[in-house]
Amino acid sequence: MTLGSVFLSEVLGTGILLLLGAGVVANVLLTKSKGFDGGWLLINLGWGLAVMAGVFVAYKSGGHLNPAVTLGVLSSGAAEYAPGVPVGFASTLAYVAGQLVGAFLGACTAYVTYKKHFDAEPDEGKRLGVFATGPEIRVYQWNLLTEVVGTFVLVIVILALGKTPHGLGPVAAALLVVGIGASLGGPTGYAINPARDLGPRIAYALLPAHRTVSAAVTVGAPAGDPGPERPASGAKDADWAYAWVPVVGPLIGGVLAGLASQFLF
Amino acid sequence: MTLGSVFLSEVLGTGILLLLGAGVVANVLLTKSKGFDGGWLLINLGWGLAVMAGVFVAYKSGGHLNPAVTLGVLSSGAAEYAPGVPVGFASTLAYVAGQLVGAFLGACTAYVTYKKHFDAEPDEGKRLGVFATGPEIRVYQWNLLTEVVGTFVLVIVILALGKTPHGLGPVAAALLVVGIGASLGGPTGYAINPARDLGPRIAYALLPAHRTVSAAVTVGAPAGDPGPERPASGAKDADWAYAWVPVVGPLIGGVLAGLASQFLF
Amino acid sequence: MTLGSVFLSEVLGTGILLLLGAGVVANVLLTKSKGFDGGWLLINLGWGLAVMAGVFVAYKSGGHLNPAVTLGVLSSGAAEYAPGVPVGFASTLAYVAGQLVGAFLGACTAYVTYKKHFDAEPDEGKRLGVFATGPEIRVYQWNLLTEVVGTFVLVIVILALGKTPHGLGPVAAALLVVGIGASLGGPTGYAINPARDLGPRIAYALLPAHRTVSAAVTVGAPAGDPGPERPASGAKDADWAYAWVPVVGPLIGGVLAGLASQFLF
Amino acid sequence: MTLGSVFLSEVLGTGILLLLGAGVVANVLLTKSKGFDGGWLLINLGWGLAVMAGVFVAYKSGGHLNPAVTLGVLSSGAAEYAPGVPVGFASTLAYVAGQLVGAFLGACTAYVTYKKHFDAEPDEGKRLGVFATGPEIRVYQWNLLTEVVGTFVLVIVILALGKTPHGLGPVAAALLVVGIGASLGGPTGYAINPARDLGPRIAYALLPAHRTVSAAVTVGAPAGDPGPERPASGAKDADWAYAWVPVVGPLIGGVLAGLASQFLF
Repeated sequence: MTLGSVFLSEVLGTGILLLLGAGVVANVLLTKSKGFDGGWLLINLGWGLAVMAGVFVAYKSGGHLNPAVTLGVLSSGAAEYAPGVPVGFASTLAYVAGQLVGAFLGACTAYVTYKKHFDAEPDEGKRLGVFATGPEIRVYQWNLLTEVVGTFVLVIVILALGKTPHGLGPVAAALLVVGIGASLGGPTGYAINPARDLGPRIAYALLPAHRTVSAAVTVGAPAGDPGPERPASGAKDADWAYAWVPVVGPLIGGVLAGLASQFLF
Repeated sequence: MTLGSVFLSEVLGTGILLLLGAGVVANVLLTKSKGFDGGWLLINLGWGLAVMAGVFVAYKSGGHLNPAVTLGVLSSGAAEYAPGVPVGFASTLAYVAGQLVGAFLGACTAYVTYKKHFDAEPDEGKRLGVFATGPEIRVYQWNLLTEVVGTFVLVIVILALGKTPHGLGPVAAALLVVGIGASLGGPTGYAINPARDLGPRIAYALLPAHRTVSAAVTVGAPAGDPGPERPASGAKDADWAYAWVPVVGPLIGGVLAGLASQFLF
Repeated sequence: MTLGSVFLSEVLGTGILLLLGAGVVANVLLTKSKGFDGGWLLINLGWGLAVMAGVFVAYKSGGHLNPAVTLGVLSSGAAEYAPGVPVGFASTLAYVAGQLVGAFLGACTAYVTYKKHFDAEPDEGKRLGVFATGPEIRVYQWNLLTEVVGTFVLVIVILALGKTPHGLGPVAAALLVVGIGASLGGPTGYAINPARDLGPRIAYALLPAHRTVSAAVTVGAPAGDPGPERPASGAKDADWAYAWVPVVGPLIGGVLAGLASQFLF
Repeated sequence: MTLGSVFLSEVLGTGILLLLGAGVVANVLLTKSKGFDGGWLLINLGWGLAVMAGVFVAYKSGGHLNPAVTLGVLSSGAAEYAPGVPVGFASTLAYVAGQLVGAFLGACTAYVTYKKHFDAEPDEGKRLGVFATGPEIRVYQWNLLTEVVGTFVLVIVILALGKTPHGLGPVAAALLVVGIGASLGGPTGYAINPARDLGPRIAYALLPAHRTVSAAVTVGAPAGDPGPERPASGAKDADWAYAWVPVVGPLIGGVLAGLASQFLF
């Protein structure tokens, strides 16, 4: 398979991942949405099934959809990223570039799908929360650790999936992501994927979604999740001060899991 | 297989789909139902499992249950709709006719199953909401776009399902519909199927369900979802002004997904 | 296989079904339980997974666990109830007797598992609601129809399950029961199984569970589901006036599905 | 396979089990967590998927992760604990030791993942509740019975899983644990695993998690689950008075299920 096919496959898969993933957050957070205030479990299931859908459509490239998975496979010592795709510098680049581009495009598509609900949403923290993750208690080193642990679990289990016979296909990965979100997503919102966070954060900065709505007074404003804690300054940006955490943490976690798998499996 | 068998199979499958799909909405919306106010996730799971049940019983025709799926398969360039059913004008007609008739009959059956709860429900918007979808923010071009996107995801993933080995059968489609509902159903209630919306809307217009209950004062009326936003005029009809959106949007999405699959897969 | 083995297998499977099924209702309804007020979806999933567990342990007899399923298989014209168990009067009796005994024993086990929570529960409607179903709006002919429809869906889909290849085993039946509960359980609480309702109702009448707790004043009594509507008279019995509905309705629905399958499949 | 490999495999699997299992409880109980007050079903799904993840990574040793399962397999008369691991005194010890060590380490990892949320949590009952189970109504003999029943169901169904062909792999065990939690977890919080309770309880006693936070006044303290009922005295310890129940109960239940399987299957 050509690297162009790999790139395109990861663009498609990660695009679907972010379309559905950002979509479920929009559904739960944005005013007037039918799933408004639908709860953490709805978000967990939405992201898990987003993974399932993305992996199904990215079957050609094995559906990594996540640089931490790609680097995890690399550091596990595997010879191939997918059948017919040898591990190497160029192929790694094709995967990661496709994931970033796909995540950006998927988030943009989620934005237009919920366009009128973004327009009607006065809470900037919620609008950002659809695109990017943020911690509930902002202490970077602990937030980083949470992302390392979550991604370690993701990648070590993915590397083990093939060892036990089962007929679940991409649903096994979906259920794993549901479980990690339910269990380890509490402090930081489980990016566990650098592309999932960085691509949409860039999209948020470029799209009208980040603009403050003038009609800030909303009658019957929901009492739900106020979105992640924000620093007092720079409240209108895309929270770039935090952006390195969901990139670096997952990369560390993925590489550690790959190395551990060499010892454990 | 004869086209009569195709027709009957799609009637049965889409009938079960609408019986369970309209049923779960009735359970969540209608006063005094045991699942009252059960939340968006309950609705998503109910519709997803309705798809599972419908596809299982419509095994003879491949369980399309949706004109957007049928047109998506057609525009993907496939030779057969199901084993032994070649793509063609007559077979397309048999599928779509079966889907519309089945959706109508399934919604009628859901109505009699919840008959006394319909009789006890004073809120017309809820009674209609059991049968047909409606937008939370009514702007037709954006509502249309939402339905196009949701149906595109539905059909592109369905066309990819066979590329990855798994033993899930109809449950894969069920989970996909749960995910699309959770993620993309917020603005319009995810018709993503012209038959699912049009058949029951016709049923609503014909059944006593659309009549205003005389005893409009209900003690302890629920504070839940007030149903989709309705125009001030024509409040008692089946909201025909919106009816074209969940027909046209899904058809566009399905055809686009079929064409895209020729390029992507 | 001997009919004694069939009987024992159905006792075990229906016992586990009712232990877990009555258990989840106890968890959601009874004061001080950790799952108190856990919602309709929790009840649906609990009953669905109860079916899964029961079918797994009753593998020898094919895990009917339900007279409506047994009669549905019979009326479908099948030759065997399970591999090595021919359809006949004696085998039918062995199935149904095992199902009734198992349901009775399973409900008793659920009672002792939640013993202190039954003792602490002042609301008689809730104590009964753990054992037996009851309608929200009591109109027998419509309640009957609801049970006929729900059981028809159950049995027609079960008879179709083997037509589509999948590797889900008993989980397919579990998901089906989750879906029927979510969609069609609103009016009557979906007995869809004569043994599931009658066996535990007898257990309720015999166990101390039906006795009114003397210390009727409970501080902080929950504001949740008040249980099914009860007639003013006979409030302390096991609601025998309703007991025929969840027996007759499911039997009609199961037989109709079996006959329909001869025509449809 | 060496007993060292068995030990390491069970450490890894039980470690992941407790990391995700304690994690979901932390997410639901601890102040400021994104899944705060997420409900019983979220906890059930989190623990079930924790089992799935743990069994996948512990594929070498068959993923027991639970002394009650190991003793259940032993008392069922099986010859091997896993392919290539004969039942015996040394192998039993390797399993149980690995499970206890893994549970301890997994709980410690969950603690550091939620470190800042533990620091911010004034309610000692909740901090303990992340690590160890406790009854809602404290009557030891009835609490013991509840744990016996829950573990009996766990082990008898696990011993039956292989009798019915399915392609679910570790997801079957995961769904079973979801079901047991939903149905039988109400009175005691379903330890159903001595290692799951004892290992983390020791961790709680050693970690700073058990220290009372000085700033006990919290504005906007949640009105959710106050945690298990605690005796007035010794309120700051790890509730050692109860610790024997979730060890002895599951062991009895597991052995009974193993013996019953010899008769039933």
